Amino acid sequence: MQKGSLFVVSAPAGCGKDTILNELLKKTDKAGYAVSATTRAPREGEVNGVHYHFLTREEFERRIAEKEVLEYTEYCGNYYGTLRKSVNDLLNEGKDAILKIEVEGAMNIKKLFPEACLVFILPPSWEVLEKRLRDRGTETEDKIVERTKQAHNEVKFAKNYDYLIVNDELENAVSDLLAVMRAEKLRRARNDELLAQFN
Amino acid sequence: MQKGSLFVVSAPAGCGKDTILNELLKKTDKAGYAVSATTRAPREGEVNGVHYHFLTREEFERRIAEKEVLEYTEYCGNYYGTLRKSVNDLLNEGKDAILKIEVEGAMNIKKLFPEACLVFILPPSWEVLEKRLRDRGTETEDKIVERTKQAHNEVKFAKNYDYLIVNDELENAVSDLLAVMRAEKLRRARNDELLAQFN
Repeated sequence: MQKGSLFVVSAPAGCGKDTILNELLKKTDKAGYAVSATTRAPREGEVNGVHYHFLTREEFERRIAEKEVLEYTEYCGNYYGTLRKSVNDLLNEGKDAILKIEVEGAMNIKKLFPEACLVFILPPSWEVLEKRLRDRGTETEDKIVERTKQAHNEVKFAKNYDYLIVNDELENAVSDLLAVMRAEKLRRARNDELLAQFN
Repeated sequence: MQKGSLFVVSAPAGCGKDTILNELLKKTDKAGYAVSATTRAPREGEVNGVHYHFLTREEFERRIAEKEVLEYTEYCGNYYGTLRKSVNDLLNEGKDAILKIEVEGAMNIKKLFPEACLVFILPPSWEVLEKRLRDRGTETEDKIVERTKQAHNEVKFAKNYDYLIVNDELENAVSDLLAVMRAEKLRRARNDELLAQFN
């Protein structure tokens, strides 16, 4: 059994990252989310271990100290991070682990796991992204300006990613990501053991 | 329009390379063979410009001298090679060009076009390959031994390729190659222009 691979997917808000990943996971049983951990309170409908691993602040800090947290960030007074165990459990089952994290976390993961494959999802254009954020109808104008500015900052990191996927049509973007995940497993660099069988 | 990319596909005899590529080309209109040139006589049913560009020895040598031949080899007294024009015509149409060539030609193409993507097709095992060669029923025992030996030499080059595909089930191998071709187009290194639109 080939061990699972680690895929990191990042995108600015409004690029449809969650929708793409949810559709993708319907189409393959060979991959799963590495569920993030957080100290914020669960929102209605959120299930521990599915949407997040909900931890107390003390528990999160203990895990940081014990190097069980691969990367983390503090946002609005709460910790958000990736537990080493969440990733390893998937990989050891032979599944690909998908980490849905923001750009700085992604850079940290790449340092820890140089073999991780980083995928950045882009909007078709800035105009479309702004329109999508506006069409949600849930954000104030200030918030839209802030999110757009943040998106510009995040896209600056895209040059450090391995693949770029434009989310123009959802179905295409899902197929793109499936192709990336399938192709990555075939890269020579990931198949030393296979080649060794022929020598 | 994104320019086409160059894919080189190599495999030892009996690995099903031709079948995979023929099936693949039924499933996509975004790629085509870069037809090889040769000085050998056409066999029955072979069409000039489809199976090969059939050239006289003088014509082939003139094209070598004029640097119109990207790579070539001499085998049993005949030249076999790839014309620069065959590749460029496809790329300029926005299609991916597939070169079906042996390992040394592939290494030469990689030197000329570092961005070329090299795919090596492997048999499931040496045993299966020998069985396939034997089951053809068209080869003498000497020829089978020779081809197996040649296959061992060719597989030594596989470590220099970008992707390895095992042809166990034809349909899987075709899907693998389609995924590789789709994913390669999404690599960040091939999308500087796309990223530039966001800066």
